[in-house]
Amino acid sequence: MKKQNISDAVIRRLPRYYRYLSDLQKKETIRVSSNLLSSKMGFTASQIRQDFSCFGEFGQQGYGYNVEDLKREISQILGMDRDHHIVLVGVGNLGHALLNNFNFSACGFVMDCAFDVDPGLVGTEINGTRVYHSDKMAEVFAEKGTPNVAILCVPKNVAQKLTDSLVEMGVHGFWNITNMELSSSVPGVEFEDIHLSDSLLTLSYRISNK
Amino acid sequence: MKKQNISDAVIRRLPRYYRYLSDLQKKETIRVSSNLLSSKMGFTASQIRQDFSCFGEFGQQGYGYNVEDLKREISQILGMDRDHHIVLVGVGNLGHALLNNFNFSACGFVMDCAFDVDPGLVGTEINGTRVYHSDKMAEVFAEKGTPNVAILCVPKNVAQKLTDSLVEMGVHGFWNITNMELSSSVPGVEFEDIHLSDSLLTLSYRISNK
Repeated sequence: MKKQNISDAVIRRLPRYYRYLSDLQKKETIRVSSNLLSSKMGFTASQIRQDFSCFGEFGQQGYGYNVEDLKREISQILGMDRDHHIVLVGVGNLGHALLNNFNFSACGFVMDCAFDVDPGLVGTEINGTRVYHSDKMAEVFAEKGTPNVAILCVPKNVAQKLTDSLVEMGVHGFWNITNMELSSSVPGVEFEDIHLSDSLLTLSYRISNK
Repeated sequence: MKKQNISDAVIRRLPRYYRYLSDLQKKETIRVSSNLLSSKMGFTASQIRQDFSCFGEFGQQGYGYNVEDLKREISQILGMDRDHHIVLVGVGNLGHALLNNFNFSACGFVMDCAFDVDPGLVGTEINGTRVYHSDKMAEVFAEKGTPNVAILCVPKNVAQKLTDSLVEMGVHGFWNITNMELSSSVPGVEFEDIHLSDSLLTLSYRISNK
């Protein structure tokens, strides 16, 4: 597997390939051509061949890609086989929605636990995930191990301070759902932001320009 | 404003420009160069100039862009000045989270009302948004007008059937948060899907390949 100079744009397409290949696999499709992928996904066939060639040779000219092999390769490239550990911080409505509905294990993540400051939530379990008091993070991490990723669902006014504490405790990956820009001066800390408004505005464009 | 052959990739960058220009405006910045935008946003300066040139001439060589003008132009391109009407269908945890926390009006949308089948929710108001029974959609639309967009936060097993009914009632824009692929055979119906897992997998890649 060669993995050099892969652009962010390519990386962002990989989960979409993964989803589509998973659908094909459910339909028991064995092989798929870049042309078919292209017609279903809206990228050109040559773009798709170029994307996959970043990581090595998965297909054979004129013969297409083996769905299962390609899906497995993409899952490995995405790190889905690493058993990354994740915690959720801030168990409001959105936190509840994620714990109840989001399939973390399907993304290769082990959900360790959640944190909140609400005494009514501390000590409860939500869909099998235990909620601890946010003051106990260091203790919980000492016992369970430091997670690879923290999901931030906390109010904006505490988000940056909390991020700094978590970085200090050794957390280097943040799934940021606070709708606020966060940063860290510590090298190697990764932030991935969910901006729901970007998605809604894209839809706004499409319904406005028909 | 010229608006032809604009690629999906350009459209998807526009909300990010909008967000960043809003931040600059809050800091009372008057002008910004494509080089500064480039360093902050991770696109090349020439990419940025090319993106903006799709829509006409906003900047002046060597002088940069006027933040307020550029932001207003982008908001108009995105259709944020059209007073689009939106309803939310499915008031579970995620629906509650959106109604309580998402700033629809900042995206140019008027939130008309929400729908659910839970008798405990029907008749209540969540952050000022009235919840009606899902059976009453046609009546409510007849009274308030048909919304431009429906947000789908319903369980997967009812999502496609509900979409078909809404399309029949004249709704042609769907913000799909069901994590399921939806479609319509009616021309001109637009779907915008939120795939949270794509975002988490991108983060998984980044923490796995350091």
